[in-house]
Amino acid sequence: MSAGDDRGAERLARAFLARVLEPGDEAGGRWVRELGAREVARRLREDGPRLAGVTGRRWAGLLARARLAEPERDLAVAREAGVRFVVPGDGEWPGQLDDLGDARPCGLWVRGRAGLRMWALRSVAVVGARACTGYGAHMAAVLGAGLAERGWVVVSGGAYGVDGAAHRGALGAGGATVAVLACGVDRPYPPGHTELITRIAEQGLVVGELPPGDHPTPSRFIVRNRVIAALTRGTVVVEAAHRSGSLVTARAAQRLGRHTMGVPGPATSGLSAGVHELLRGDAALVTDAADVVELVGAMGELAPERRGPVLPRDLLEPGARRVLAAVPGRGAAPPGAIARDAQTTQDDAIARLYELRSLGYVERHGDGWKLTRQAMISVHGGRNRC
Amino acid sequence: MSAGDDRGAERLARAFLARVLEPGDEAGGRWVRELGAREVARRLREDGPRLAGVTGRRWAGLLARARLAEPERDLAVAREAGVRFVVPGDGEWPGQLDDLGDARPCGLWVRGRAGLRMWALRSVAVVGARACTGYGAHMAAVLGAGLAERGWVVVSGGAYGVDGAAHRGALGAGGATVAVLACGVDRPYPPGHTELITRIAEQGLVVGELPPGDHPTPSRFIVRNRVIAALTRGTVVVEAAHRSGSLVTARAAQRLGRHTMGVPGPATSGLSAGVHELLRGDAALVTDAADVVELVGAMGELAPERRGPVLPRDLLEPGARRVLAAVPGRGAAPPGAIARDAQTTQDDAIARLYELRSLGYVERHGDGWKLTRQAMISVHGGRNRC
Repeated sequence: MSAGDDRGAERLARAFLARVLEPGDEAGGRWVRELGAREVARRLREDGPRLAGVTGRRWAGLLARARLAEPERDLAVAREAGVRFVVPGDGEWPGQLDDLGDARPCGLWVRGRAGLRMWALRSVAVVGARACTGYGAHMAAVLGAGLAERGWVVVSGGAYGVDGAAHRGALGAGGATVAVLACGVDRPYPPGHTELITRIAEQGLVVGELPPGDHPTPSRFIVRNRVIAALTRGTVVVEAAHRSGSLVTARAAQRLGRHTMGVPGPATSGLSAGVHELLRGDAALVTDAADVVELVGAMGELAPERRGPVLPRDLLEPGARRVLAAVPGRGAAPPGAIARDAQTTQDDAIARLYELRSLGYVERHGDGWKLTRQAMISVHGGRNRC
Repeated sequence: MSAGDDRGAERLARAFLARVLEPGDEAGGRWVRELGAREVARRLREDGPRLAGVTGRRWAGLLARARLAEPERDLAVAREAGVRFVVPGDGEWPGQLDDLGDARPCGLWVRGRAGLRMWALRSVAVVGARACTGYGAHMAAVLGAGLAERGWVVVSGGAYGVDGAAHRGALGAGGATVAVLACGVDRPYPPGHTELITRIAEQGLVVGELPPGDHPTPSRFIVRNRVIAALTRGTVVVEAAHRSGSLVTARAAQRLGRHTMGVPGPATSGLSAGVHELLRGDAALVTDAADVVELVGAMGELAPERRGPVLPRDLLEPGARRVLAAVPGRGAAPPGAIARDAQTTQDDAIARLYELRSLGYVERHGDGWKLTRQAMISVHGGRNRC
């Protein structure tokens, strides 16, 4: 069996498990860690031997779900919809999700052009209340735009209110944004955000643990939040009432050693009460994107950025290489101009530019992009060398 | 020379120094600590020997001020205006001001019925921007009222904006409030607060370091803030722009080991920016009076309250004893009813009730006052014993 067949079998087993196990099922994660995804999938498909610590009732439930699973079909449907299934071991798998331990997703369904791993390296979550106030929506939009302008990727949950405002802020600033859904990524939820999520899939990424067509449930929203927390360097909560789901994301971020941040609001606002609760604990108070970047950047800008690009230019994917070549040697150019030069779309150029940003090649300068100092040395000084 | 003459000479010397030295003059404080107030006053009146570390120019300036000083007249004018001059060693001197070291005031001019020392024991400062927003004024008023309702004394600077709202909140709740002025206490400043400050002198206390008739200056406002910080168990900043004078009070409180607290506001508001700056440091985020009391009370409620009143009932001043006798043995009574029973005014009853609160005899219950459990034992159980 070739390495490719091997990866294919692993992917198929994980697509199967994504149907059978609920997201965040830590017992399932333990079986996969101990036996491997393929062996767990085999036992569920072939009714035994029964997995460790499973009651008869639970085993029957798992088998019932296993009988209905059609992972080949799921993968085909996904492919058809422009969705790829990224699993641990893939080049695009974001390694920081491994911090979730046995609650790590079996895999992530990904819709969009950019490389998730690269984007996640320099990402911040902006989350908050669905029924936010005008103030909350304003702050989320301004933070989304400000983070995008600083070359950071804005991750959120695609929901109404704060999430949507954060995504829109990033999109509007020609930025990178990732929506992590609690349902199949081919099935935008909430329905009123169909256009927004479609737009995110074009300029950004839409990702989720659930297979194509699957629906959200209250517990899936909560469990999804751990992925948002783990994927990013920190979580900013904009508005949240006491017992809000956003506080779950913030606490998950805290447990994972990520930065937890809160935007203060009027003491008279119930929608700021949850944020103030966080701020009384270990969360940092932030009022703008500069505050956020100061914190998440302080964890140590990525090594490549400081030392200059680590990945040699010739190892970049052809698309990224073309976009890099279109960034001017002096000064900055807007993504539209770079896209024209690279003979691609603006959305594709944005996807590549934020990847190149994570790799330390380029940086945003106002609305435009320019080479980093380190990249100028390696691209121009080293063009003939590599 | 009798002990009374001695106290009189000390008071006169300090009244003289209050005219000659600027508030917060630490060199002056050192001289007083090393030589005593009377010796420092004598040297300034008699032109020598020159005090340690004083240049010729500074000495001449001090002598010029000394020549103009008329402490007997200041004390007489004060007496006339119902103002007393409280100095270290007096029963009414608030011992916590000694934490200011050489920046301790020479004395405090006090206008109002209540005992400053007793009131200061359970006091909190509420300060903030003069040009506050409606939100800031609302929060200050609600905090002032809430603290008063919990038996705490509200200290502020008598200024427009947050200060005034905090005082008014406390007054409106039948509470105790202290205005610490940066000018003579017989000379209400700002002029637009003449009525408010007069009202505070009736139901509360108006205090300051500057002799009768003296005027405020920008630096006197700043230096005054250390008295507000030192007098209280903690300082709450409601709204403050960057570089606001309220932040000086907050930082002084921090240096003095008092609680520093801030009320968050919209991240979009410049008038909350200074508070958010504090909250990024060591200040605690508070959103209501309960939050404040939880912090300042946690430092240890005063020992008397826990162990029952320490000062025996018969050692109370006659006025306080009469008011205590008018507090019903069961249930609570409003201050008006207590005043009638004690045959005094409501303002006087309020002054005594907050003193008795500090001594652990009574507590507020809604709009009324009742005996503490410990006091019921000592007052009723011990009535015949003491």
